[in-house]
Amino acid sequence: MLNYKKYKRFETIKLKDRTWPDKEITSAPIWCSVDLRDGNQALVNPMTVEEKVEMFNLLVEIGFKEIEVGFPSASQIEFDFLRKLVDENMIPNDVTVQVLTQARPHLIERTFEALKDVKKAVVHIYNSTSILQRDVVFNMSKEEIKKIAVDGVKLVKEYADKFNGEIVLEYSPESFTGTEVEYALDVCQEVVDTWGAAPDRKVIINLPSTVEMDTPNVYADQIEWMGRNFKNRDSIIISVHPHNDRGTGVAAAELALLAGADRIEGTLFGNGERTGNVDVLNIAFNMFSHGVNPELNIEDIEKIIDVYERCCKIPVHIRHPYAGDLVFTAFSGSHQDAINKGIKKYKERDSDIWEVPYLPIDPSDLGRKYEALVRINSQSGKGGVAFVMEQYFGFKMPKLMHKEFASIIQGVSEEKGEVSADTIMDKFKEEYLEKESPFKLIKCRVSDESSEGNEVTRVNVKLLYRGEEMDIEAEGNGPIDSLKKALVKNNLVNTSILDYNEHSLGGGSEAKAAAYVKLKREDNGSETYGVGVDSNITLASVKAVFSAINRLYK
Amino acid sequence: MLNYKKYKRFETIKLKDRTWPDKEITSAPIWCSVDLRDGNQALVNPMTVEEKVEMFNLLVEIGFKEIEVGFPSASQIEFDFLRKLVDENMIPNDVTVQVLTQARPHLIERTFEALKDVKKAVVHIYNSTSILQRDVVFNMSKEEIKKIAVDGVKLVKEYADKFNGEIVLEYSPESFTGTEVEYALDVCQEVVDTWGAAPDRKVIINLPSTVEMDTPNVYADQIEWMGRNFKNRDSIIISVHPHNDRGTGVAAAELALLAGADRIEGTLFGNGERTGNVDVLNIAFNMFSHGVNPELNIEDIEKIIDVYERCCKIPVHIRHPYAGDLVFTAFSGSHQDAINKGIKKYKERDSDIWEVPYLPIDPSDLGRKYEALVRINSQSGKGGVAFVMEQYFGFKMPKLMHKEFASIIQGVSEEKGEVSADTIMDKFKEEYLEKESPFKLIKCRVSDESSEGNEVTRVNVKLLYRGEEMDIEAEGNGPIDSLKKALVKNNLVNTSILDYNEHSLGGGSEAKAAAYVKLKREDNGSETYGVGVDSNITLASVKAVFSAINRLYK
Repeated sequence: MLNYKKYKRFETIKLKDRTWPDKEITSAPIWCSVDLRDGNQALVNPMTVEEKVEMFNLLVEIGFKEIEVGFPSASQIEFDFLRKLVDENMIPNDVTVQVLTQARPHLIERTFEALKDVKKAVVHIYNSTSILQRDVVFNMSKEEIKKIAVDGVKLVKEYADKFNGEIVLEYSPESFTGTEVEYALDVCQEVVDTWGAAPDRKVIINLPSTVEMDTPNVYADQIEWMGRNFKNRDSIIISVHPHNDRGTGVAAAELALLAGADRIEGTLFGNGERTGNVDVLNIAFNMFSHGVNPELNIEDIEKIIDVYERCCKIPVHIRHPYAGDLVFTAFSGSHQDAINKGIKKYKERDSDIWEVPYLPIDPSDLGRKYEALVRINSQSGKGGVAFVMEQYFGFKMPKLMHKEFASIIQGVSEEKGEVSADTIMDKFKEEYLEKESPFKLIKCRVSDESSEGNEVTRVNVKLLYRGEEMDIEAEGNGPIDSLKKALVKNNLVNTSILDYNEHSLGGGSEAKAAAYVKLKREDNGSETYGVGVDSNITLASVKAVFSAINRLYK
Repeated sequence: MLNYKKYKRFETIKLKDRTWPDKEITSAPIWCSVDLRDGNQALVNPMTVEEKVEMFNLLVEIGFKEIEVGFPSASQIEFDFLRKLVDENMIPNDVTVQVLTQARPHLIERTFEALKDVKKAVVHIYNSTSILQRDVVFNMSKEEIKKIAVDGVKLVKEYADKFNGEIVLEYSPESFTGTEVEYALDVCQEVVDTWGAAPDRKVIINLPSTVEMDTPNVYADQIEWMGRNFKNRDSIIISVHPHNDRGTGVAAAELALLAGADRIEGTLFGNGERTGNVDVLNIAFNMFSHGVNPELNIEDIEKIIDVYERCCKIPVHIRHPYAGDLVFTAFSGSHQDAINKGIKKYKERDSDIWEVPYLPIDPSDLGRKYEALVRINSQSGKGGVAFVMEQYFGFKMPKLMHKEFASIIQGVSEEKGEVSADTIMDKFKEEYLEKESPFKLIKCRVSDESSEGNEVTRVNVKLLYRGEEMDIEAEGNGPIDSLKKALVKNNLVNTSILDYNEHSLGGGSEAKAAAYVKLKREDNGSETYGVGVDSNITLASVKAVFSAINRLYK
């Protein structure tokens, strides 16, 4: 039995005369992406420089005007990445980069070195102010903690005054939600005053729920209270930075907007430490579904997913709001019926307003299709097709193959409308398993010999090539490699092997294996997977090679 | 550019004198699991009867006292499943089963047939009441829609009066959040009156956000308004059933509790149509972290994940609150430092109250470990170990192998405390890649021959068995099968092959392959995976077989 008595709620203000519950979200906040910092930091394998560049370009395309690019004074890689952005002119004029740093002299100096030649930047300093951290981590008084913040601001100001470009200050009382609001206000107000904030020289005061500690209405009370009590609210941009420990990060951000926040820091799909940062796309789609301009270009969700999954190596869950493979499906018959009727009426009435039961937004707005609505079979999301292949037929296609096969199925669905699971399987057979031209395998012999570290494989293959029977053979490093060499030796095809996967289909001694081989043509660089199925695992991989070359040289 | 003007927000009440934002959650609601109905319905492959039984038993263990088991009048499988529960006495005395049905005569009759001999059941009827569905789906007036509900109640009452056991009525105005509250109240009040509700004969009025349509504070206003306006509130259990289309289902449920809801319908990990139902475990853990008894046994999260993933075939995301593999990790150095200091103070002070920065709850309360806190390397979650093997070393272990290897690593961490990625890899080598006893492979020759559908594989192996060199050979259906036969033929070992997977490790012509073979001993039924790595894919699988038999016959 769990000992719940070990925990207690952190008591904070209750704002009796709160006004936020009567408000509505009517315009987009200032969006700030922290994917390259808070998000990247939480990856087991952080992004490479190439991946960071790809992510940065995606964020720019989506329309973020403020992008936190790292903590350059703490990490050489993040320093180099920022220099690359600057030196290669990759920062558009309307995009402001943001850098995080602790407020210590050598770190601030280094931060400004990293920013050289940047036209405009946000310098983001922070220190922890919560009761708990003051006690167990820092063992400092309130005055001492406040001094850290104020000294930091003075330092940044000194460097900013000498800097060629424009510097905006951002200050975060880290672990704000565990801080007494009166004390948080005291520290923040002093930061604002020390900087010399004015309506045309605003300071960003970022109030993070570093750890989500309570229901989202409590966070909203805290935000509204802060906003009301600054003495010069018009010189301050109130920013929020919610985490998701209680699974209510999106709600916290939304209620904070109602409570007067001007700006949101978050990530794509909520990547970030532990349970993650708040998912900015989710909030943007929520606005969109209420007819509010989200001021982000979120229509190509498939592309966003694609870059995100490649750079972060974290999958988007099948039930993730707006983005998951299953979120526009309805398995219930009565739901399907209502959706069909709703869409029919929507079209008949030629309505300006989307109103269809069970579908809060029109999937076609996200690059998905009408006919892709109600059954998983016909989803055009690449994961959807892979899901059908695995759940219905047992084929666990390698991740990199999902897109290749999904775009084939998308072609079918554009032509025929709804696509059933059987149609998907038929197409899989046609495209991968049954191609016999230009090469047809007639006979094959593979022998692998290994003796104390010396290994050699020999393949002998009889094949039909454009109507002509021929025998080829070679030795190599395993069946796939030897076969590739035999094909090269006879000037038939020249490819390199990019990927190989194989797994049993079902169990028992009668089980077959499915092999997937990805080849690249050396002459023109085109790439494809091939698939082979056989009860013999070696022959399955040989067949997969023929499948791939028949696709590459058709 | 997205056409946001195509959408508009559904205008509902704003409760100016709301009281819920001043409330706190101080006790658990009545929990009702809808995993076997709403959850199951949304699976591409719905659960088999065996899986349903396993899920039902898990739900009982967790402590749900109300469990919706299906829609027996609409589905023979769900009818049979309920009969199995009854006939095999699987329903504990303190657990009430709930069945969903539309309120039509033949369906109600069939529902009561399915319930025969049940001591107490909730019969849950519903019809859609929203403006949109009245319009586009039913084309009915308010009075006609209300009549469906009231006629349904009369019918259920008729059958309930004749029924041997106790029947509790539940009524859902489906798509409640898109219904005018005054009309929803009118329908529900008439349902309550028609049933003849009383404080000792309560009706469950379930107010679903069938599709999540607004920020969670709006739902709370609707719930509070309804609760205030029933004329006999003490005869009604107000239930909520939030979905998660806007990513705020947990918040909606929590604010609804503040607003007076007595009961929550939801699922484990939020399985369900589209983005899913609300995740009841998440809400329960949120209560727990505030020192409120959740009245659910949620301490063995690994087991819950295990059964859930097996039955639903849906993964729990690595950042899922409280349950994901990464949620108790901190990659940031300053976070790690603060956690260490916090834990140290917690122990020094011998405190009754858990207060550690960045960790809202003590992971050991969930069967995870102290030393497993800050680095992924040492997580005892089975997915954590698999994650390290893939992210650091490229080994994509088959899903079924995760648990086997994780329990080996758990043994190491119990002995040594923190476990690094390298230690995990060392153990992997020791357990799988480097075992040479009782069998050591010396030489091996595998030849696969295929000629127009006739396939045969021959293996010749020289091996050392307990110090004795021997040659064995056999023919079979591929390398693994032939090797297995050769071992049987020579009375060495007798196994069956349960699973096989293989993939390339890295790319390029120098790439190696990793093969995973799962074998079962025929004599005692014990099972294990073996792993082989080689640049030759055939030899990798041969090595994997030796790895497995050395583990099975050590």
